[in-house]
Amino acid sequence: MLYSKLFGKTVKKAPSDAVLTSHKLLYQAGFIRESTAGRYFILPLGQRVQQKIMNIIRKEMNKVGAQEMLSPVLHPLSLWEETNRTNTTGFELMKIKDRRDMWFALGGTAEEMFVDVVRKFRPSYKDLPLNIYQFSLKFRDEIRARGGLLRVREFIMKDAYSFDGDEKNFKIEYKKMWNTYGKIFEKIGLKTIVVKSDNGYIGGEYCHEFVVESNIGETTFLTDGNKYNAHLDVAEFTRENINTGEEIKPFKIIEQPEWVKTMEDNVKHYKLPKSRFLKNVVYKNRITEKIIIAVIRGDLDVNKIKLEHVLDAVGQLEDASVADLKNIGTKPGYVHSWGHKKALYIGDLSLSTVKNFIGGQKEKKSDAINVNLGRDLKFDHLFDIALAKSGSIKESGKKFIEKKGIEVGNIFQLGYHYSNKMKNAVFVDKDGKEKPFYMGCYGIGIGRTMAAVVEKYSDEKGIIWPESVAPYKYHLIGLDLKDESIKSKVHKVYKELLSRGQEVLFDDREDVTAGEKFADADLIGIPYRLVVSKRTGDKIEVKKRDENYTKLVSLDKLVSKLS
Amino acid sequence: MLYSKLFGKTVKKAPSDAVLTSHKLLYQAGFIRESTAGRYFILPLGQRVQQKIMNIIRKEMNKVGAQEMLSPVLHPLSLWEETNRTNTTGFELMKIKDRRDMWFALGGTAEEMFVDVVRKFRPSYKDLPLNIYQFSLKFRDEIRARGGLLRVREFIMKDAYSFDGDEKNFKIEYKKMWNTYGKIFEKIGLKTIVVKSDNGYIGGEYCHEFVVESNIGETTFLTDGNKYNAHLDVAEFTRENINTGEEIKPFKIIEQPEWVKTMEDNVKHYKLPKSRFLKNVVYKNRITEKIIIAVIRGDLDVNKIKLEHVLDAVGQLEDASVADLKNIGTKPGYVHSWGHKKALYIGDLSLSTVKNFIGGQKEKKSDAINVNLGRDLKFDHLFDIALAKSGSIKESGKKFIEKKGIEVGNIFQLGYHYSNKMKNAVFVDKDGKEKPFYMGCYGIGIGRTMAAVVEKYSDEKGIIWPESVAPYKYHLIGLDLKDESIKSKVHKVYKELLSRGQEVLFDDREDVTAGEKFADADLIGIPYRLVVSKRTGDKIEVKKRDENYTKLVSLDKLVSKLS
Repeated sequence: MLYSKLFGKTVKKAPSDAVLTSHKLLYQAGFIRESTAGRYFILPLGQRVQQKIMNIIRKEMNKVGAQEMLSPVLHPLSLWEETNRTNTTGFELMKIKDRRDMWFALGGTAEEMFVDVVRKFRPSYKDLPLNIYQFSLKFRDEIRARGGLLRVREFIMKDAYSFDGDEKNFKIEYKKMWNTYGKIFEKIGLKTIVVKSDNGYIGGEYCHEFVVESNIGETTFLTDGNKYNAHLDVAEFTRENINTGEEIKPFKIIEQPEWVKTMEDNVKHYKLPKSRFLKNVVYKNRITEKIIIAVIRGDLDVNKIKLEHVLDAVGQLEDASVADLKNIGTKPGYVHSWGHKKALYIGDLSLSTVKNFIGGQKEKKSDAINVNLGRDLKFDHLFDIALAKSGSIKESGKKFIEKKGIEVGNIFQLGYHYSNKMKNAVFVDKDGKEKPFYMGCYGIGIGRTMAAVVEKYSDEKGIIWPESVAPYKYHLIGLDLKDESIKSKVHKVYKELLSRGQEVLFDDREDVTAGEKFADADLIGIPYRLVVSKRTGDKIEVKKRDENYTKLVSLDKLVSKLS
Repeated sequence: MLYSKLFGKTVKKAPSDAVLTSHKLLYQAGFIRESTAGRYFILPLGQRVQQKIMNIIRKEMNKVGAQEMLSPVLHPLSLWEETNRTNTTGFELMKIKDRRDMWFALGGTAEEMFVDVVRKFRPSYKDLPLNIYQFSLKFRDEIRARGGLLRVREFIMKDAYSFDGDEKNFKIEYKKMWNTYGKIFEKIGLKTIVVKSDNGYIGGEYCHEFVVESNIGETTFLTDGNKYNAHLDVAEFTRENINTGEEIKPFKIIEQPEWVKTMEDNVKHYKLPKSRFLKNVVYKNRITEKIIIAVIRGDLDVNKIKLEHVLDAVGQLEDASVADLKNIGTKPGYVHSWGHKKALYIGDLSLSTVKNFIGGQKEKKSDAINVNLGRDLKFDHLFDIALAKSGSIKESGKKFIEKKGIEVGNIFQLGYHYSNKMKNAVFVDKDGKEKPFYMGCYGIGIGRTMAAVVEKYSDEKGIIWPESVAPYKYHLIGLDLKDESIKSKVHKVYKELLSRGQEVLFDDREDVTAGEKFADADLIGIPYRLVVSKRTGDKIEVKKRDENYTKLVSLDKLVSKLS
């Protein structure tokens, strides 16, 4: 490609609102331009990178038997109604009506569509496992788009869907995808951390994100520095014993000064750590209107996501209002750890780590002390509903550290979530009976992956593309082009490289200084810079983008290396 | 690919509503499935064909310097308002609002978007010519979708946009695209006819369609059997002289029986051919409300499209109503060829081919005769506003024949249509001045091209893919697989072919008869069928899909041919 003819030339300045390195560099180097907030033109250089990323993904997916296809982007809304997802997605669904008055959703994810196409075939057990995928546009009606390609409203996603006969076979497929993702990102040049995550609006029971560690990432996760990585929302941790050796004392209602209202007041008044007190947090299920009181040790916070999973009410809980509290006979700051009728109590695992809790039945001038699990505070089960934090302890004894990263891919167990809700989402098993599919799904955002690469590979001069995803392998620069002999030499080098099937961006401009050409080459970030000039004589100067030294080689030598 | 694992197996029956060969065969052979009317899943076999078609296009486009990029699919509606296209497109535009209340159009064609991205760069004359393209989803809110991929509501299109400094340079680019399209379709195996067409909602002055001749096609065109092919809407033809040698007689108002009302009545009464009478057709411009009377020779019909171009009022004319006629002081059947005030008269070229016209001033019991152009009937210019028909004559003396075909691609001159309407759609010329772009655009529908191939290449057994776009090159069939030695032999052949980088669909099923396997192979239509069975001994039976004989070759020989 002649740089003089390239659409998307470099510019000196990034947009004033650009904060992220990837946004600035992809803009300045001519890889992207914004259409409207969160919707980007991918310019020719950017499109070449996207295609290389897609080809790496395609190759690895095909290698493990996945099959590429393509689904429409306008999904009949009736399908989303079948799974009751029209109101429960995490992203706002965009809807549109055609002129025959049929409603569609603009695909944000395509589980229903893939179930729909598979069920048309009524597959046999012999067709399973089945893993089908596509590269297709996805739409997310994000309230806030982020600068550059990291959080956008429209993007290409590789989304794959697996269909198995049972959980055991699914787990083999899940592991296969896990390993395939590892290979894909490694080939792209990205070191990823696999982070246990919440499955959110997708449904199913567990999932994992592939995260590139980065301080500008939007994903916050906890790691024990060993092998355990998890989102705050799902991280499991050990509730260390506080005073389990202490003797159980008789339950007592005592007088308490009226100024003792908050947890901090309690700590001050009793001169005891937060962990000795009971804490209550009240939610309302916005669909059933049921009131839920979560009871937890005073030093911990309730994790709403975990609580929703315990209650099988994903996306349904909201903070209770003053009116809701009044309804069950109480008010803010005076919720009891037991006894409010009409409310459902859920206790956290931490309740078993303390003897003689303080609190739980606060009134204006009194509260309870020596409250003990099993005697005063009764639950059939305790659940893990607490929010893990930096410093929380894993079984290994290691403490969590909080890290940030960019989510570039994810794998989801869906189980029977969709096949139970959608009609005829079945295969015919060996015994001739119809059984529902056991499903999974697997996504990779293409633009975000490109941006993540730039976040990891750049310096003050520009991007440093890994060879596997670079828009071109060689950036050929001709200098002193007014000299016809040099001009003809560099054009010869260009043609020779092309004839060998090499990918070359050739800066053939005659009205630009050497300094500008070098700066553009550094900004664009192609792996090998080749220079032909008066100074290089019969040879070609070669420099790797990420190295500081150059060497002179002959065309023959350069070319022989290639063939 | 193992056929046993392929998603999208063959089925015996086509959908009951399938009429077209391509619809039936692509469905039965497992290339496509309908989601909702006009929106299709492209199954793995179909996606492989689409990708081959796209790669052929990509290669040829890149060869002539076009650059691939990608534009968002949701176009800010404000851009379509800039060009006043929100109401004038030929297809119904689908619109959608995001939750920040911003309106978008679902892209049906992307002229505005590409102008918008190019103007962000304020290019120099040195950057021109510029030709940028994408493969992207297009949406058309068609009232009626047609079975299969021939007329759909959502499809992948290659759309390219060229930017030149002036008409002269544009014409070079237009010819380049014309030739490139020829090469593309030739490589795909399609013989195309280039048909001059109306540019409709795209804007600009002229355009050409690439049409595959087919009786099931929706495109009707006229051909002189030589080099001239044109849509009915734009076809130019010669108005043969009727009686130009006749002496001009004095204009006269004569009595005429009341029963003479229609053109047929005239022919009967005067015993003269239709061509001797004047005909008037009345339209209203629905935007300006202006009344237009088109005057034409009695044997010809007015072509509304041509008339709209003459008036620079594309998409604006409608048939005049009785009320409209009353407004200019007349009624149906009594419109005059001159003299109605408030109406604009436009005359067809054919008016110069007749002397002593009959008609033009019909009243209840009278009409005019010996009406002559220039004396009684006055126009500053005559225009080509007549509809060509089968039998109309070209200058060459050849008569038009009507043919039908499938439009697989089109190329459009846009001229200054967009750059004049959109702000800053300019480049900086040599003299430092800003000048508007001279533009063109170029489309190819991917799915429709696939369907056109099937319409051209099939027999009663199924599809016969040209090798260049076949989903696989080899269809390997294993028979007698209960015999372990044969099973291992066919698997060895499969692996050997794969290791040589060959594309093989391997029918490894053990519970299917030879007959079924052969029938499936014929239906799917892969170019080379390879059979390994007891009967083939140490060799492999090879049969081309479009030939009736087989031959036995050794694996070594087959393989040596490939390397």
